[in-house]
Order: sequence, then structure tokens, then C-alpha cells
Amino acid sequence: MTDAEDALARELLERISAKWPLWVLQVLRAAEAPVRFSRVLERVEGVSQKMLTQTLRALERDGLVTRTLYPQVPPRVEYAITPLGAELLAQILPLWRWIVGHLPAIEAARAEVDGRPA
Amino acid sequence: MTDAEDALARELLERISAKWPLWVLQVLRAAEAPVRFSRVLERVEGVSQKMLTQTLRALERDGLVTRTLYPQVPPRVEYAITPLGAELLAQILPLWRWIVGHLPAIEAARAEVDGRPA
Repeated sequence: MTDAEDALARELLERISAKWPLWVLQVLRAAEAPVRFSRVLERVEGVSQKMLTQTLRALERDGLVTRTLYPQVPPRVEYAITPLGAELLAQILPLWRWIVGHLPAIEAARAEVDGRPA
Repeated sequence: MTDAEDALARELLERISAKWPLWVLQVLRAAEAPVRFSRVLERVEGVSQKMLTQTLRALERDGLVTRTLYPQVPPRVEYAITPLGAELLAQILPLWRWIVGHLPAIEAARAEVDGRPA
């Protein structure tokens, strides 16, 4: 692996593990059919229109999401998760489960550090 | 899982998958023994002192790293990965390998999107 590939892989891991991209992929997978922007916006609670647009563009650029424009009036745009995106999401799941299962240990560590005399 | 736990798990995944925390954990695991700050700084290429200090504190707070102070002159501080940190790193590895293995597909998607007429 070249340094450039290593940097790209790191960048992708960092980007994909962030709150919005992960949430958007989950919503698109759960939908099991292409969904409109407004529907994604509704299901990803707390995301802004601007942030969702940016997130979807980045996911599309990485080949994880497709964007399909139907040239009608008004134009309809639908988003769907790609097989590559679904596979990546499946790879993240065990890590997610591990974190959830170890939250008590992590919270205990935090309580201990936060309780120390400064 | 409560909303607070869900938020904490998301936050941890986002934080741990970032460049510096992941790299620091990898360096500490590879060392197989506690290491001094200066050594970590040397091995995590490109990290600033300030960023490394913040990263180590956050990892310590999550129970992924220990910080041991030896009260000598000058004081010696050593960092080590905890079993919890090593386990988390092991959970990230398959995801990392998947990403590395799928870089060609991701790069092809990018080239296709970037080459489209605006």
C-alpha cells in the first residue's frame, strides 16, 4: 500500500464513521428502495438541509450512494445505497455492536478520570 | 439502548475512527510496553504536541489508554494501551482491511463522478 492509499483509507474511515454519513447510509439501507431527499431529511433527525446535501454528495462520490434524477416537473431526485455502501455498512456493524456492548466499561473509565483530583 | 447511550456510541465511533486517535492506539499497541510522550510524538508522523496531548487525554478518559506518572526528576510520564483499547483496535481492523481492499472501487467511483459534466 502506498502512502497515498493509506491516507485515502484513513480519510474514508474517518469520514464514514462520522455521525451523518453513517446515519444516512442506515436510513437508505432500511428503506430498501430509492428515497427522496425530503424523506432522508425527515429520518435523519437533526441534520440540516445543507449538511445532508454535502453528506449525500460525498457518499455518492465514494460510490456508496446513487443519485437518480427524474426529469419531470417538478424534477424528482432519488437516493439509494449501492451494494458497496451496504457492504461497508455491514463491516461497520460488528464494531458498532462492540462499542455499544462496552459502553458501561467506557463510562466507568470516564467517571473514574473525571472524579480524580485535578 | 437509550438515546443518550446511542449518542455516546456514535460519538465514540466518530472520535476513535479519526486519524490521530487510531494512529496513537496503533503505535501504543505496536510498542508492547509503556512509552514516553516523546516517543509517541516521534512515531505518529505529523501530529502536533498539542494535538497529541488532547488525543491522549481523550483516549485515557475513555479507558483506552493509561497514563502513568513516575515522580522523579525530571518527572517521567508513560502511556500504554489498555486491554479495552487493544480490543477496540482489533474490532476496527476488519473494517480497515475492507476499506483498503475496496479502495480501487472507491477510486473508480470518484473518477466517474469527478469526470461528469457539471
